Amino acid sequence: MRFSRYFLPTLKDNPTDAQIVSHRLMLRAGLVRQMNSGIYTWLPMGLRVLKNIESIIKQEQDKAGALELLMPTLQSADLWRESGRYDAYGPEMLRIKDRHNRDMLYGPTNEEMITDIFRNNVKSYKKLPQILYHTQWKFRDEIRPRFGVMRGREFLMKDAYSFDLTQDDAQITYQKMMIVYLRTFARLGLTAIPMQADTGPIGGDMSHEFLVLAPTGESSVYFDKAFYDLQNIDNDIDVNNPDIVAKIFKQVTDLYAVADEKYDEESFNKNVPAPRQIAGRGIEVGHIFYLGTKYSDIMGANVAYPDGTESAVHMGCYGIGVSRLMACLIEASHDDNGIIWNKAVAPFHVGLINLRQNTPETDGVCETLYNQLQNAGITVLYHDTDDRAGVKFADMDLIGLPYQVVIGPNGVKNSLAEVKNRATGEKIEIPFDGLAEYLRSEIL
Amino acid sequence: MRFSRYFLPTLKDNPTDAQIVSHRLMLRAGLVRQMNSGIYTWLPMGLRVLKNIESIIKQEQDKAGALELLMPTLQSADLWRESGRYDAYGPEMLRIKDRHNRDMLYGPTNEEMITDIFRNNVKSYKKLPQILYHTQWKFRDEIRPRFGVMRGREFLMKDAYSFDLTQDDAQITYQKMMIVYLRTFARLGLTAIPMQADTGPIGGDMSHEFLVLAPTGESSVYFDKAFYDLQNIDNDIDVNNPDIVAKIFKQVTDLYAVADEKYDEESFNKNVPAPRQIAGRGIEVGHIFYLGTKYSDIMGANVAYPDGTESAVHMGCYGIGVSRLMACLIEASHDDNGIIWNKAVAPFHVGLINLRQNTPETDGVCETLYNQLQNAGITVLYHDTDDRAGVKFADMDLIGLPYQVVIGPNGVKNSLAEVKNRATGEKIEIPFDGLAEYLRSEIL
Repeated sequence: MRFSRYFLPTLKDNPTDAQIVSHRLMLRAGLVRQMNSGIYTWLPMGLRVLKNIESIIKQEQDKAGALELLMPTLQSADLWRESGRYDAYGPEMLRIKDRHNRDMLYGPTNEEMITDIFRNNVKSYKKLPQILYHTQWKFRDEIRPRFGVMRGREFLMKDAYSFDLTQDDAQITYQKMMIVYLRTFARLGLTAIPMQADTGPIGGDMSHEFLVLAPTGESSVYFDKAFYDLQNIDNDIDVNNPDIVAKIFKQVTDLYAVADEKYDEESFNKNVPAPRQIAGRGIEVGHIFYLGTKYSDIMGANVAYPDGTESAVHMGCYGIGVSRLMACLIEASHDDNGIIWNKAVAPFHVGLINLRQNTPETDGVCETLYNQLQNAGITVLYHDTDDRAGVKFADMDLIGLPYQVVIGPNGVKNSLAEVKNRATGEKIEIPFDGLAEYLRSEIL
Repeated sequence: MRFSRYFLPTLKDNPTDAQIVSHRLMLRAGLVRQMNSGIYTWLPMGLRVLKNIESIIKQEQDKAGALELLMPTLQSADLWRESGRYDAYGPEMLRIKDRHNRDMLYGPTNEEMITDIFRNNVKSYKKLPQILYHTQWKFRDEIRPRFGVMRGREFLMKDAYSFDLTQDDAQITYQKMMIVYLRTFARLGLTAIPMQADTGPIGGDMSHEFLVLAPTGESSVYFDKAFYDLQNIDNDIDVNNPDIVAKIFKQVTDLYAVADEKYDEESFNKNVPAPRQIAGRGIEVGHIFYLGTKYSDIMGANVAYPDGTESAVHMGCYGIGVSRLMACLIEASHDDNGIIWNKAVAPFHVGLINLRQNTPETDGVCETLYNQLQNAGITVLYHDTDDRAGVKFADMDLIGLPYQVVIGPNGVKNSLAEVKNRATGEKIEIPFDGLAEYLRSEIL
């Protein structure tokens, strides 16, 4: 992509209304623009990151055997009356009347709807276990939206729902989904810690919240530092093997980690030696629930068992805040100059900087490298405007692509590109004819 | 994907409430389920088709230099008050009040919002021309939703918006987008005919509707049969070359084609010889508008010209009904047994049918072929249930994958698979070891 043709409105100054660094940087780097309180447009570069995040989440869901579908944003109030949550939900639910004066709502979550889909289409134990998920826009009418997409009103969420024949089967699924979530967050470059949590308005019998440590977090968190040393959520484990999953699940949940109301000082001190105690604020990026038969009972989601009797299925639900994750990633990885994207989610792998635009020598080399790198499967943003070098360096540091390739007159003379690693600041020179190979080995 | 693990609730009987064939088949083949009047969930197989359609549309938008962003579903009423359309739009607009009693709406289209984004972020002619697009759920509160996703209320639309410095530039963009649309529909396997049309509530100075002939269409259409012989919208033309584009545009628009109010009998007879006259009903799948400065004037979307003066940009907008297209494709391609997907949009390329499930010989061969084909980049739905052969054949014909591979005891003996082409019904035998190569050459 050429900078001159791109829609990338960067800002030099910090927007005054943005209180936290991720919000400031998302505005300054041209990732989002607010349309209305807590409602954002994702500009082209922001959308690329959002899609990368969504894609990693999807890959891990698919590996776990979850099936993707897509439920609508608007729901009938009647479904929520059936579960009893229509009146219980409170003012965060955006209630709507259509032209025929029928009550609808903008879905804040989908337990009722997926239970309805399941009960209408699945009748036999043979179809279990089943995990269904979607990634869809949701709405929660926060009284005071703030911190940009971190606490917005219209937000993108991946929510999965599991259906099992027995409580034991449901436990296996719950454990599997915890490992899937740990691996997903690890692939995204985040350490998210699963904490015992209240089930809140979703309900159910067991629940873990995944929290990323951040001063702006909405929850108090108390956990064992040993979490940072857990290194066994690697990509090779088979999440569909219950024994392997159970072992890792035990390892993870044996470590003390609780959020908010689940906390008591005594058990914290008893379970975690003082030097390993971490207490702070956490941002919730995921939440998993074992729901039992709460929804299936009340809504009649039954299947026929092998012996012919019928019984309600055991459900679980599993959510990841997709749009919020982008802000979390920036909170966790930035410096004074801007964002530092990791290569898994970066909007482009490489920023190509031409120090002497409109000079045939550098222009020619840049065009050639631009094509070569793209042909090698590397995504490139070519800063091809006639801005001076300082502006281009500042732009590239702000938007935070993992590598910068700088082409100037000296480099052209010696056929050398300067490659800067955005995260470390390290600069090395690479011959033009080895550049694509070098970057491929670093990135892909 | 294994049929036994998939979420694919097919129906044997025709749903009584579905009046048109695409609606019946989408329900029977387990592509969608209605959640509420005119509001649907896309089940896993339906979502795969929807994503394939979206992906083809995106590829063609990107080739034309359009940039993808994502605007939210909910919009502020104030933006629409600025353009004067808030009061003008009528009851199809879903109006919403949030908890602070602020007026919002579920976007039926995005002219106001994109103009707002443009005016706040682009100030100079240097950034023009620019085309921005998104694919997002929209809502139109139809008084009587029907025909399934063909005339739903919550629907997926790709809408693009162009910004040019002058009327002449805007004409070039308009012509380009018409060619891009013709090519998009051709790639999807549809003949969509651009017809002069009224601009309606969108406004503007010029407009073409793209219509597919169908008895259930909402518009009357009158056009020259010669459209069916236009074969020059091939994949190699450079849509960014204005001369090439202007030539094809002229060729296309010289042919007579009008919808609804633009029709008059006299000019139809004058322009089209009787044997070439086609009059019928058409389904709108796309609509393009040259808007002039309608929105930019009233909302102050100005850029500085090279000479320093400021003036309103010339806009265009370009919409494709993504979710509706799936119904159109089925209307255009089905038989008594079910859907006939073309390979560009099919949810899977191949349906693998095991005639003797739970027999070691056929099971073994099917497992091997299932893996081989997938490793060759072919998507496969393996019908691995213990249903009898007749049920499997009926399922596969109903869901309409382009190829069926049938494995039975005789085939296993002779190492031969029977391959059926769903569209032609033709059956041929292919040796196991040549199957992947044969299908690759047919499909990819």
